[in-house]
Amino acid sequence: MTTLREIGEDRLIERLVGLVPSDSAPAAGPGDDCAVVDPGPGHEKLHLLKTDALVGGVHYGSDTPAWAIGWKAVARVVSDFAAMGGKPERFLVTVALPPETEVSWAEDLYRGIGDCLKAFDAVLAGGETSSVPPGSAAVISVAATGSVRREHLVLRSSGKPGQILLVTGTLGGSLRGKHLDFTPRIKETEWLVSTCKPTAMMDLSDGLAKDLPRLAAASECGYEVDESALPLTPGCSVAEALGDGEDFELLIAIEPERVATLLAGWNKAFPELPLTVIGRLVDLGTGGTLTGGWDHFTPER
Amino acid sequence: MTTLREIGEDRLIERLVGLVPSDSAPAAGPGDDCAVVDPGPGHEKLHLLKTDALVGGVHYGSDTPAWAIGWKAVARVVSDFAAMGGKPERFLVTVALPPETEVSWAEDLYRGIGDCLKAFDAVLAGGETSSVPPGSAAVISVAATGSVRREHLVLRSSGKPGQILLVTGTLGGSLRGKHLDFTPRIKETEWLVSTCKPTAMMDLSDGLAKDLPRLAAASECGYEVDESALPLTPGCSVAEALGDGEDFELLIAIEPERVATLLAGWNKAFPELPLTVIGRLVDLGTGGTLTGGWDHFTPER
Repeated sequence: MTTLREIGEDRLIERLVGLVPSDSAPAAGPGDDCAVVDPGPGHEKLHLLKTDALVGGVHYGSDTPAWAIGWKAVARVVSDFAAMGGKPERFLVTVALPPETEVSWAEDLYRGIGDCLKAFDAVLAGGETSSVPPGSAAVISVAATGSVRREHLVLRSSGKPGQILLVTGTLGGSLRGKHLDFTPRIKETEWLVSTCKPTAMMDLSDGLAKDLPRLAAASECGYEVDESALPLTPGCSVAEALGDGEDFELLIAIEPERVATLLAGWNKAFPELPLTVIGRLVDLGTGGTLTGGWDHFTPER
Repeated sequence: MTTLREIGEDRLIERLVGLVPSDSAPAAGPGDDCAVVDPGPGHEKLHLLKTDALVGGVHYGSDTPAWAIGWKAVARVVSDFAAMGGKPERFLVTVALPPETEVSWAEDLYRGIGDCLKAFDAVLAGGETSSVPPGSAAVISVAATGSVRREHLVLRSSGKPGQILLVTGTLGGSLRGKHLDFTPRIKETEWLVSTCKPTAMMDLSDGLAKDLPRLAAASECGYEVDESALPLTPGCSVAEALGDGEDFELLIAIEPERVATLLAGWNKAFPELPLTVIGRLVDLGTGGTLTGGWDHFTPER
């Protein structure tokens, strides 16, 4: 008998996706930050869909304020819409809580959810509440619909060898609390897609060491990273920057000849937020190999 | 300190909905089987959104086959689209599982999900996998988008005093296994909305005793039920028919003068599936009171 712990998250997903019917003509392949649905040639905007979940004892500890959990549950999903060049619109929130949960805790959770929705001009369209058996972990599951203008859509699968890799902000430190205090890069991606559109993009949710290989694989490329160039969160090591996860910064690929223009425009638009060259995409089968990053089923690695 | 167990599910939801922003001009009020989004006057179809969840130890036992859990997780949501007169299209599935789960169990779960999607012409558009702490209950959270033709939309809030109440199939017995073996009434609602459209409709997920008061309240009516007329699943008592929940049959309200036409057409179209008059809507503040039915946070009632 093989368990999920033994095969890990990526191999589990590979084994599951073939068992279910999928869109016969998807606007983007599976595995991007959001699913993309094309409503037809007459429509200016593509539809985006995303689901995500927070689990007690996995994504937050027992001492985490309920408000912060609610904010984070929504902000993680907002970040995925940003990573496609789009925006979220309507949210569905399912909470599964033990019956011994205090009502005031559930209310604080929803205040956090509501405050994040307001901050990004989204609304709650529906929800579900369920109990879990006493003592079981709480699960907050968030699904959302949104949209992106056709010409603004950025996939993680459209990188090419030779393109330069950049990241926003600083990496590492989520395990010291940063995972509750991040800003989805909606404003920044809105600027990017309308001013200097990346060729490929994703948000960093499981750590650069886990996520960059995913972008490279989706783009059928290898990659090289200059670890000495990584923008470290103060007090963090390179290993933490690569592996902590939950940075919710953007990983961007762009043609080398556009990097100077991008950096000049960026530094003017967002003087407080670094945008740092960290490496490049190379031919498939060449380049380096990062290991580590967050895996749900084998966190003890 | 008040806990969820003490206030129950309906009062919890009442306290939470005011804490989050909602659609400023929803096509249907909150609390219906699906959320309804109007994409604008040029569109023939309205969009529908729904989320739901299954929890181990709550919605299924440890001896339930994983395939049946997957089927049920999707079928419950399909039933909600049927209850609006519409159809589901794209699903997002989040599974939160303990790391000690066997891979073959997860695969069987997805086979059940896939088989139900195929049975109702829907696809998986995205998903998420997460771990839960060892020993915690598994949670399978399902969100879906779908659509309904404008003229086919049926709400639970549009009943009127004097209208007759009917239910499809038989009620009760979910606790003896029926909850894993039900057919969402998609075919039947397709016939209903195009042939003899009900004035109000919902699916019975928490038991008639819990759900009829919800339809009546949404329609600002009271209700009367003839308990001797309830179509009982063989071997079930009236109490079980009222309170077991998870029947996933339809509760319909329709004008008295259309009942004979409805029944004649129904019995020709669906000779195997009973459609039974069980009572009527009356003026608010009059009629009877049903108690019981499934409540997530106070199941020991």
